[in-house]
Amino acid sequence: MLFSVLVETRLRPGIADPQGATIERSLPALGFEGISGVRVGKAFRFVVEAADEDTARSHADEVTQRFLINPVIEDADVSLSVAETV
Amino acid sequence: MLFSVLVETRLRPGIADPQGATIERSLPALGFEGISGVRVGKAFRFVVEAADEDTARSHADEVTQRFLINPVIEDADVSLSVAETV
Repeated sequence: MLFSVLVETRLRPGIADPQGATIERSLPALGFEGISGVRVGKAFRFVVEAADEDTARSHADEVTQRFLINPVIEDADVSLSVAETV
Repeated sequence: MLFSVLVETRLRPGIADPQGATIERSLPALGFEGISGVRVGKAFRFVVEAADEDTARSHADEVTQRFLINPVIEDADVSLSVAETV
């Protein structure tokens, strides 16, 4: 079976996020008020082939923790949905 | 009311994604098989203050379309949840 995976990473609370801070500072000058707490992370999408959902999830979690994020400064949410049953 | 917004961007289909392609090519050498279609985008999180959910959503959509993505090459999913009722 094929599973679609979305890994959404973000900096841990307390880690400085200059990119987010710059966006936040610019918005009022551009006419947008009332937006705060801007944080920028990454979104990885991929397809995992596995026999069942548990296997796919553990595979996706391992790839995420070992290669996609820096666990010292980043957190990740991994979400998974069935793309295709073969 | 405060609303938490997650904007998840990705390159449109057909747009080359060298970062994703590099990750995908590296995975088998690192011991991960069965992963394909890796695409890398961005994840923006922020908080919007607005009177109701429709206002917050239109505000978030406008910021996304005007400043956070390049609509020529990128798509975005905007999701919104109530963070706090004031």
